[in-house]
Amino acid sequence: MKVSELGEFGLIDILAKTSHGTIDRGALSGQKLILGIGDDAAAWYGDDSIQLATTDSLIEGIHFSLDTISWEELGWKSLAVNLSDIAAMGGLPSYSLVSLALPGNTEVDDVISLYKGMVELANIFDVSIIGGDTCGAPVVVINITVIGSTGNRDNPILTRSAAKAGNQIAVTGYLGGSAACLEMLSKNVTLDSNTTAILRKTFFKPYPRITEGRLLVENGVISAIDISDGLIADCSHICRMSNVSARIEIDRVPVLPAVRDKFGYRAIQMALSGGEDYELLFTADAGVIEKTKEAVSCPITIIGEITGDKTSGVTLVDNKGNHVSITGKGWEHFTTGKDKE
Amino acid sequence: MKVSELGEFGLIDILAKTSHGTIDRGALSGQKLILGIGDDAAAWYGDDSIQLATTDSLIEGIHFSLDTISWEELGWKSLAVNLSDIAAMGGLPSYSLVSLALPGNTEVDDVISLYKGMVELANIFDVSIIGGDTCGAPVVVINITVIGSTGNRDNPILTRSAAKAGNQIAVTGYLGGSAACLEMLSKNVTLDSNTTAILRKTFFKPYPRITEGRLLVENGVISAIDISDGLIADCSHICRMSNVSARIEIDRVPVLPAVRDKFGYRAIQMALSGGEDYELLFTADAGVIEKTKEAVSCPITIIGEITGDKTSGVTLVDNKGNHVSITGKGWEHFTTGKDKE
Repeated sequence: MKVSELGEFGLIDILAKTSHGTIDRGALSGQKLILGIGDDAAAWYGDDSIQLATTDSLIEGIHFSLDTISWEELGWKSLAVNLSDIAAMGGLPSYSLVSLALPGNTEVDDVISLYKGMVELANIFDVSIIGGDTCGAPVVVINITVIGSTGNRDNPILTRSAAKAGNQIAVTGYLGGSAACLEMLSKNVTLDSNTTAILRKTFFKPYPRITEGRLLVENGVISAIDISDGLIADCSHICRMSNVSARIEIDRVPVLPAVRDKFGYRAIQMALSGGEDYELLFTADAGVIEKTKEAVSCPITIIGEITGDKTSGVTLVDNKGNHVSITGKGWEHFTTGKDKE
Repeated sequence: MKVSELGEFGLIDILAKTSHGTIDRGALSGQKLILGIGDDAAAWYGDDSIQLATTDSLIEGIHFSLDTISWEELGWKSLAVNLSDIAAMGGLPSYSLVSLALPGNTEVDDVISLYKGMVELANIFDVSIIGGDTCGAPVVVINITVIGSTGNRDNPILTRSAAKAGNQIAVTGYLGGSAACLEMLSKNVTLDSNTTAILRKTFFKPYPRITEGRLLVENGVISAIDISDGLIADCSHICRMSNVSARIEIDRVPVLPAVRDKFGYRAIQMALSGGEDYELLFTADAGVIEKTKEAVSCPITIIGEITGDKTSGVTLVDNKGNHVSITGKGWEHFTTGKDKE
């Protein structure tokens, strides 16, 4: 079977099983693993704190095109997607290792711009770039590892596996901006300069929710994920890992206003399935979410709830509770076989 | 200027400067950097120990060809080159993050073999594979990050910058096997099966000197590097970082016997410049090296000494102390301009 037939998540499952025998051997060197493959970051007990580590690669032609993203934006985004994983654990990032693979004809000034973008973001969150690796390659490959911690061994971390039936589901900020930006660029849609700038910023300079992740932990949230694959897909990860299901009321999903204004019926699809918004999706009791709302300066929107049903995954409903599905024309109520003909 | 004109080490220097402003910001989260970009691994003070982290990428067509290396060997080697960096710091590896970028038509069974090779090595040194990332790519890209520690905050680490004038220079094991294997494969040289197996093992399944690195520290060595770029190049890194020079007596260099037997006058060049042998090159006072020799089970060979001269880098000498140079025909004494005509 080919990797393309199996898909990313199937491959991760197999690799997690193949490497499972290596888990907890680290205990011999005095450390103890908390979370291995499968969450936003790996976590283990350090001496006085919980340590976190995450890694992500960005590959030219797969994750970005140098026709649309600037080198400086690319540097920012490469680090941001990793910081977002640390945010989704409720951690603070400390150190970063950067591996660059570059075609020989890459301009040195462009590589410096790449680093400047990374450094700009690193400085905001006090992350030190402490090492890495450079080599040649047919296309640009950027791999970044970020190491962080919770600061305290007794602090809980945010995991994908802690959602409980009865929890409300909430999301930080607004969704759909990255998918809209990708569509604007790939289809050469011309929008006013203000909208263009908003969408580019969402897609190319996502702002990792480190501060918000910390406040989630402080206010009692224990389950979260960052929205990289898309709201529905990432909510499904929580359901699978927590052995629960989710009901999302689509009218409550906070679509980025610029997307709602300019992309009509496509907007809800972009917000639900687009991905790469790097907002935090989290679940908690209503009271905890209320406290969190007061503590966090960005918008927090309740969009649904976790149910005890273990088999139905993520269900979308309208404001009357009727099931709906997302189609190329936006969303519609589930139709019978007859209607479909 | 293009990256290819500047070269790898020039690029690393520029990137180290560009990211220098981020160094020590980690102190705000209670940690303190010891070593950033430029050594085998980054190092910082954890709560009770010195933490280490290193990362390396292997890219198809640049670092390996799937025509010659098996997937299982590729898995072993990808982890081994990172463990070797931890060994060169005198540390113990604990955790590993694996990022795989794969063409869609890669066989899932091949990816499982890759992981099996990694797991085989990980289990030898009690390393847990705790996370990573998978994505598509035009060629196979494997990036591995290894996190380790010294076990104790007061333990010294092995650095490139601690060599002192008067130190002897020593090396573990034998050199030249990987360069010889590469030549055997690239020029379709047919050798007996025993030699072929020895050379393949050196190149494709290098055994990281973790145990030896620990014993070096315990016996008082404080300066070391692993031989990835080649003996001369890696010794030059120590000279530059320690602000000293080195004199290597080429007759003392431990060339792998199979290489000396089969590659004639080319053998010494392979041992001095070939790289990828992943042995440890270290410097210390004669007494410390004598103690180390007794403690370590692999051969330790003294090959030269560190001199106080800050400008001459690595000088090669024969057994009478006369300067020699390496040429396509092995080595020769330095010739005058007239002789060259």
